[in-house]
Amino acid sequence: MNASVRSIAIVLLLLLPGAAFAQGSDLIVEKKTFELPNYTTVGGATIKSVKIGWESAGSLNADKSNAILITHFFSGTSHAFGKYAASDAAAGYWDAIIGPGKAIDTRKYFVFSSDTLVNLNTNAPNVVTTGPATVNPDTGKPYGMSFPVVSFKDFVNVQKALVDSLGIRRLRAVVGASGGGFQVYEWAASYPDMVDRIVPVISTPRADAYLIGWLDAWAQPIRLDPKWNGGDYYDKEPPLDGLKAALKVATLLAFQWEWAAKTFGAGPAEEGKDPTKAMDNQFKIQTGLDGIAAARAKTIDANQFLYLVKANQLTSADPAKIKKPVLLLYSPTDLVFQEQEIAAAAGELADAGSTIETGRLLGPYGHYNGVLAISQAADQIRAFIDR
Amino acid sequence: MNASVRSIAIVLLLLLPGAAFAQGSDLIVEKKTFELPNYTTVGGATIKSVKIGWESAGSLNADKSNAILITHFFSGTSHAFGKYAASDAAAGYWDAIIGPGKAIDTRKYFVFSSDTLVNLNTNAPNVVTTGPATVNPDTGKPYGMSFPVVSFKDFVNVQKALVDSLGIRRLRAVVGASGGGFQVYEWAASYPDMVDRIVPVISTPRADAYLIGWLDAWAQPIRLDPKWNGGDYYDKEPPLDGLKAALKVATLLAFQWEWAAKTFGAGPAEEGKDPTKAMDNQFKIQTGLDGIAAARAKTIDANQFLYLVKANQLTSADPAKIKKPVLLLYSPTDLVFQEQEIAAAAGELADAGSTIETGRLLGPYGHYNGVLAISQAADQIRAFIDR
Repeated sequence: MNASVRSIAIVLLLLLPGAAFAQGSDLIVEKKTFELPNYTTVGGATIKSVKIGWESAGSLNADKSNAILITHFFSGTSHAFGKYAASDAAAGYWDAIIGPGKAIDTRKYFVFSSDTLVNLNTNAPNVVTTGPATVNPDTGKPYGMSFPVVSFKDFVNVQKALVDSLGIRRLRAVVGASGGGFQVYEWAASYPDMVDRIVPVISTPRADAYLIGWLDAWAQPIRLDPKWNGGDYYDKEPPLDGLKAALKVATLLAFQWEWAAKTFGAGPAEEGKDPTKAMDNQFKIQTGLDGIAAARAKTIDANQFLYLVKANQLTSADPAKIKKPVLLLYSPTDLVFQEQEIAAAAGELADAGSTIETGRLLGPYGHYNGVLAISQAADQIRAFIDR
Repeated sequence: MNASVRSIAIVLLLLLPGAAFAQGSDLIVEKKTFELPNYTTVGGATIKSVKIGWESAGSLNADKSNAILITHFFSGTSHAFGKYAASDAAAGYWDAIIGPGKAIDTRKYFVFSSDTLVNLNTNAPNVVTTGPATVNPDTGKPYGMSFPVVSFKDFVNVQKALVDSLGIRRLRAVVGASGGGFQVYEWAASYPDMVDRIVPVISTPRADAYLIGWLDAWAQPIRLDPKWNGGDYYDKEPPLDGLKAALKVATLLAFQWEWAAKTFGAGPAEEGKDPTKAMDNQFKIQTGLDGIAAARAKTIDANQFLYLVKANQLTSADPAKIKKPVLLLYSPTDLVFQEQEIAAAAGELADAGSTIETGRLLGPYGHYNGVLAISQAADQIRAFIDR
């Protein structure tokens, strides 16, 4: 396939929750469900019957010291490696670095990953999460906007209960990209005695003002859509136009100009429909972004999107509490977590007593280099994890 | 005032169409109106009674060889220098470099600037433009979405008619930032015999795929707002929520993280309303962006926004047709026209036979360094213009 078609294919594969461009994987994983009868949020609200999905590969050793937790990004799920069935079109999003003999070697390590609270992909098979789209056991109806605010600290607390349930007392590493990186930092700051080393990828410990503003800009089209109806749409049509508009903004920021140029170019969407001739005649990137957003929106719930946006805005792991070996991987063309901000975070972590190693992920994908170009760092990750 | 208050003040001043942070100016300018009885667009549509506003300072010399045209950016107007009255709170947006004795010296040059077609600020005093908000003389009602598509080539063609009307046969320079830069390149490509030198600031000759996509993302909330009503709202409430949402996205992209951190920080908007406690409790940057958007929206028409977005998407001046001395000023933290794209444009212009000089505008404002930090390049601009 040519570069443009391949690039679009990569993007479309990204839309399948947890799936990325990857060669066939021999690793088969299954989705399991972890349940807490009650969970009290950092904000003090109690949620009954909290469920999250998780998957794993490899085996725990005798002293359970070989566990590695993989935390997922904004639009991702626990499907980071392997396939659910040999016939799956694509493997998990980081299959390039996780599996038997790979950088994070499932022959040596017990590698596991969980869906977070308020995961976006409530309409995807194999995703188990609890959020505003979940039926409130007290009312028999979806929570909607009555669901309590949750933060990344809550995500990590629920993951910790999963880790405890497995009898794991220490994690050899916590590894995650973007929102997964937020979880990585939160783990190291909240449970320092349980974490040996961390690999935050395309991420800083805290959401800064600019990211808080962008997250607001992502979310606003959902609230503008009259079908959102204050979050009460579960027995009606969902606010699909607002959700698609939200996903378009998020998609643009997560990539960058080189990706847009290579994938779509500046040409018209349709031959014979010259954009100079009518307001409705579009460019290729307009219909391309529409297509990406429509494909993504199929599995995503709009209220979960609003809650995940809020959780991201609230992220604020304290780097001063993190004194660990850190492998910080970043993309110099990342518009979400820019190089200067990554450098500032590395400085804060080093000042606090962490030992920092950094690595660059190059490619045309901007922020998404952290997912799509991760294999560049395979050797560095292997050496860091095995050390 | 402290840095944060001053930074917000700068932004709010930017909202006054054409106004920017500047010390008092002694230069008084007045708005004049240029009218064409008929204008036929590049797309072949004829618009009756096309009016644009313009202002000037300095005097034409005997052979009319000392004229300098200033072209305005997306949200700007012809008010680039001076004040309408001594009591005005702020001067034109580039008053720091244009005026008596300044880099572009109005004691030596006749400096003029015009409002473009489909200028955003139809509700501002002193703005004269023609677009979808204009009353169609054939129907007695605003054009709305029946206005024809216009491009930057049309903007420049109407400006050329103004230039002709003044008896000016050559422009010593055309100088403009961002969308003003698009006009600068279009002038040099369309009317090479009339342009001696150009100063494109924070701009490339063409909208690339990524910018076309972003412009689509800016515009989409307007179409999502039910009050937009297919562009037919002139006898009803305008789509203010959609317009404000559009302005928030545009504002975020035009600045960058340093500006957000310095201006707003990551704190809550209101004491006692902790964002961790309720979905509606916001951060300072959220209410700050809302305030900026609300202030801007007062003077802006939503349909004009859609038409200006389209014109920007259609921009494609051919660098191969430009063989001029070029002073290309850019901001290394610009997210709209990134440094690598500026470098690529400079390469194309040089290959075509232009002589290129570049200059960097530093500061926390990202793309807006081209407006707010322009005085850094004052000496370079003076030398280039006077040469």
